[in-house]
Amino acid sequence: METNSSGGAGGGSASESSTMILHNAVVVTMDSDRRVFQNGAVFIDIDKIKAIGQSRDILQQFSHVAHHILDLHGQILLPGFVNTHVHTSQQLGRGIADDVNLMTWLHHRIWPYESNMTEEDSYISTLLCGVELIHSGVTCFAEAGGQHVTGMARAVELLGLRACLTESIMDSGDGLPPSWVIRTTDECLQSQKKLYEKHNNTADGRIRIWLGIRQVMNSTDRLLLETRDAARELKTGIHMHVAEIPYENQVVMETRKIDHGTVTFLDKIDFLQENLLAAHTVWVNDTEIGFLSRSGVKVSHCPASAMRMLGFARIREMLNAGITVSLGTDGAPSNNRMSIVDEMYLASLINKGREVYAKGTTDPTALPAETLLKMVTINGAKSVLWDNEIGSLEIGKKADMVVINPFSWSMVPIHDCISNLVYCMRTENIVSVMCNGRWIMRDKKILNVDEEEVISLAKEASSKLLRRAGIKLPSRMNVIP
Amino acid sequence: METNSSGGAGGGSASESSTMILHNAVVVTMDSDRRVFQNGAVFIDIDKIKAIGQSRDILQQFSHVAHHILDLHGQILLPGFVNTHVHTSQQLGRGIADDVNLMTWLHHRIWPYESNMTEEDSYISTLLCGVELIHSGVTCFAEAGGQHVTGMARAVELLGLRACLTESIMDSGDGLPPSWVIRTTDECLQSQKKLYEKHNNTADGRIRIWLGIRQVMNSTDRLLLETRDAARELKTGIHMHVAEIPYENQVVMETRKIDHGTVTFLDKIDFLQENLLAAHTVWVNDTEIGFLSRSGVKVSHCPASAMRMLGFARIREMLNAGITVSLGTDGAPSNNRMSIVDEMYLASLINKGREVYAKGTTDPTALPAETLLKMVTINGAKSVLWDNEIGSLEIGKKADMVVINPFSWSMVPIHDCISNLVYCMRTENIVSVMCNGRWIMRDKKILNVDEEEVISLAKEASSKLLRRAGIKLPSRMNVIP
Repeated sequence: METNSSGGAGGGSASESSTMILHNAVVVTMDSDRRVFQNGAVFIDIDKIKAIGQSRDILQQFSHVAHHILDLHGQILLPGFVNTHVHTSQQLGRGIADDVNLMTWLHHRIWPYESNMTEEDSYISTLLCGVELIHSGVTCFAEAGGQHVTGMARAVELLGLRACLTESIMDSGDGLPPSWVIRTTDECLQSQKKLYEKHNNTADGRIRIWLGIRQVMNSTDRLLLETRDAARELKTGIHMHVAEIPYENQVVMETRKIDHGTVTFLDKIDFLQENLLAAHTVWVNDTEIGFLSRSGVKVSHCPASAMRMLGFARIREMLNAGITVSLGTDGAPSNNRMSIVDEMYLASLINKGREVYAKGTTDPTALPAETLLKMVTINGAKSVLWDNEIGSLEIGKKADMVVINPFSWSMVPIHDCISNLVYCMRTENIVSVMCNGRWIMRDKKILNVDEEEVISLAKEASSKLLRRAGIKLPSRMNVIP
Repeated sequence: METNSSGGAGGGSASESSTMILHNAVVVTMDSDRRVFQNGAVFIDIDKIKAIGQSRDILQQFSHVAHHILDLHGQILLPGFVNTHVHTSQQLGRGIADDVNLMTWLHHRIWPYESNMTEEDSYISTLLCGVELIHSGVTCFAEAGGQHVTGMARAVELLGLRACLTESIMDSGDGLPPSWVIRTTDECLQSQKKLYEKHNNTADGRIRIWLGIRQVMNSTDRLLLETRDAARELKTGIHMHVAEIPYENQVVMETRKIDHGTVTFLDKIDFLQENLLAAHTVWVNDTEIGFLSRSGVKVSHCPASAMRMLGFARIREMLNAGITVSLGTDGAPSNNRMSIVDEMYLASLINKGREVYAKGTTDPTALPAETLLKMVTINGAKSVLWDNEIGSLEIGKKADMVVINPFSWSMVPIHDCISNLVYCMRTENIVSVMCNGRWIMRDKKILNVDEEEVISLAKEASSKLLRRAGIKLPSRMNVIP
C-alpha cells in the first residue's frame, strides 16, 4: 500500500492503479438522492467505483485492500463532465469565422475548411480539442458529426477520454463546395456501418460509434428513415443538428409540407426516438416541445453558440416538460471556448436573462446551480445513452471523475459550495481528471500526450489547412509587420 | 544593464526598475490609429511610456540607457484593462445571493451583509477582489460605491492598483435595515468631501476619490443636485446605478412626475454631465439614449449581472449613438466571476444574441472583437476620466499594461489574434501585469500581497460577517456531514 497526501490528486501512476481510495474530499455524487459527503471517499477497483461514503467508513473497510490511498485535502470530487455537442475536427479552425454572418461562416469558412481536411488533420484537431476538454473536466463527449472519424478515434484512444464519435453525414443540399462530392444515401449508411464495425466498443470500451445527420436541409427522407432503422439495429444513438435557425424551419415547411418546423417534420416521419440527441433545438414551439418530451428525445443546449449564431433556446420550458437537457460547447469556430465549465456559467446567465421577453424582467431563480450541475453530469450521461455506467458517483459505475481545487482566488469564499461550482469555478480550478479508472490529467498536467507537441502540430497543420482551403481573414487593425 | 529572456515577463524587480525595454512582443496599442506592432517594443521610464515601436528601432535607440531589457518571446502586450463597475466590498459575499429573487437578494442578503461590515472587512474584501482583478488583467477599476472607503484605499495602495473609489451613498429610501441609520444629505456630502481630502491623489496618484449615488430611489433631489455641484467643484466624477429595473423607472415616473424613467428625470434636473458614469443603464428608450449621448455620459455595461438580474442593455444602439460604453463585472454576489476577460466574451455573445428580438435572428457581426477590446481599454479609461494617462499604449501615458501568453491550449491556433484575445483568452492566459510602471503580477504570482494569506483572512472575516448579519443559506443538496 502506498499512502500519499500531496496537495494535488497525488499518488500512483495510472498504469499501476488497480485499487485506490480517494478520501477527505467533498464528494458531490449527483445520485438520485442528491447526496454530498462533506468528508467523503470513494473506493475504486480498476475502472469501477466499488464503494462510496464517509471517509472514516471507507478507510476502515478498504484500507487493507487498497493499493493507493490518496488524501484530497478537502478538495471537491465530482463525476466527470459530459460535453454533449462538440465538433472535434473543427478545433484547428478556431478564430476563422468570428464576427461574420451565417452565410459567410458556412460557405466561405466552415465548408472550405472541412472539405479540405485530411485524416491526420482530424487526428491533430481532436488531440488539441481533447486537451482543452480534459482541462475543463470533461471525461466523455459526443462528437457533433465531423470529418474522418478514424482520426478522431485514434486521438480519443490516446488521450484516454470516453466518446461517442459521429461522422458528418449529408446526402443532399445546396451550396456545398464543388470539390466536396455529395455521397449517395447508401454511401452515407455504408460508411457509418463500416466505422461502427471498426471502432465501436474499442479503446477498453471508451469509444462508441453513433450515426449522424448533419441537419435536415442536407438529408433526404430516405437517409433519415434508414438512419433511424440502422441505429435501432446497431443499438446506438443518432446525433443531429435540429431547428437551428428560422430559415431551416421555413425550408422544411415549404419542402416537406408541414405546418411548423423540423421537429414537427421529424415527428411526422416517426424519427423522434429516445436515442436521438438533438443539438441546439432553438426554434421550437410548445407543440414541438411536447413531441420531444413524449418521445424521450435528448436535447444538447449550447448557450455560447446559440447566443452568437442561433437564438434563445427554450430550456426552462424543455426542462419543465421533462426533457433531458444537457450542455455542449459546439465547435471552436462557433464559440470559441471549448469549456463546459464556462458553458454552465453561460447557460445560467442566459436563461435567467431570457425571461425578460416572457415576463418583462429577468428571473434570477431560473436554472439554479443544482440544475446546471445535473445538466453537465447525469443529464449528459443520459443524453449519450451511457447513464448505466457514468454521470454520477455510485457503486458499480465507472470511475470517471474530476478533482476541483476550490481554495483559490477565483472560488473563495465558499458560502454555497454547489453554487460556487457553477458560478465561480473556472478551468483553472480543475486540477485532476480520471476516466475509466485512470488519471488522464494530474495537477493540471495532461498525462497521455505532450501538450507542447500537440500545440506545435496543430499550429503547422492548421496553417497548411487554411492555405489549402483558400481561407484568408481580413485584418481588424493596422498591423505593422 | 540587465538582460533577461525568460519565458515569462521576466527580469528586474518592481522597485529596482527605472528604465526598461519590453521587446519582441505583439504590441496592441489601442491608439486612435489602431496600430499593432507585430514585433514591437515599449521603452518605459519610471512610470511612463517614453517610446513605442518596432523592436529593432526601440532596441537600437534605447538599449544603452535601459536598466532592464526584457524579451517577451512573442507574447502579447496590451494596455491594462479597466473594470468600470465593481463592488470591492462585496467580494466577501460571493455566493450569498445566488438563484434568489431581487427582493431576497437586496433585503435578506446584500443589505444585511453591507450594513454589518467593518472597515477591516472592507480592507480584506478589497484585497481579495484586487487579487482577482489583477489575475484578470485589470490595472484600474471604478468602485461602484461601497462600504468603508478608507479600508478600500488601504488595500488598493498595497496591491499597487489604480482606482476611482466611491462611497455607497443614500439619503433616503424604504426597506433598509433598522441598524443602518440613513444619513442626512449633508452627512452624505460631508463624508465624501472628507474622503476626498484624505485619499484623493494618494498612492503615487493611483487613487482618486469619486462621488457616489447608490441609485435614484435612495436619493433626494437635493442630494443629486449638490453631488453634481460638488463633483464640478472637486473636478471629479460621479458613479451611479442608473435605470436598472423597470420598477425603478415606474417609481421615478410616479414620484418625480416625468414621462419615462430615471434618465429622463436626470436630464430634466440637469444632472447628466460628462463626468457621470452610469452603471448598467438597461431600461432606456431612444430619447434617453439621445440624452446620454448629447451630454457625454459614460455607460458601464455589466453583461453578467445584467443577464442575471436586470435585462438586456441596448449596447449596440448606445455605441451607434456615440456613447462611450465600457465594461464592468459588478459585485461578487451578482456575477460571480470578477473577470473582465470573461465579461468581454459575455458582452459579445449576449449582444449578438439580443438582436433576435429586434430582427428575428441573432447578428454575429454585432460588437466585433475590436470593439470589445476598445471597451475594456480606451473606453474604460474615458469612462473613469483618466484617458489622458491610461487606456492605450502611447508615448507619455502611464505604463499600465498586461502581458498575455497566447501559446496555450486555450488560445491556439491563432488565425485572428485580435479575435482570439476576446473570444478565447481566459484569465489563465494573463501572465504579468504592470501598473504605474511597476509589476504587480509576474508569471501569475501577485507581488505585493501573499495570496494565501489574503484567502485565509477572507475566509475568517466572511464567516464572521455572515454570522453577524444573520445570513443563513439553505442547502441545495442532501449534505451528509
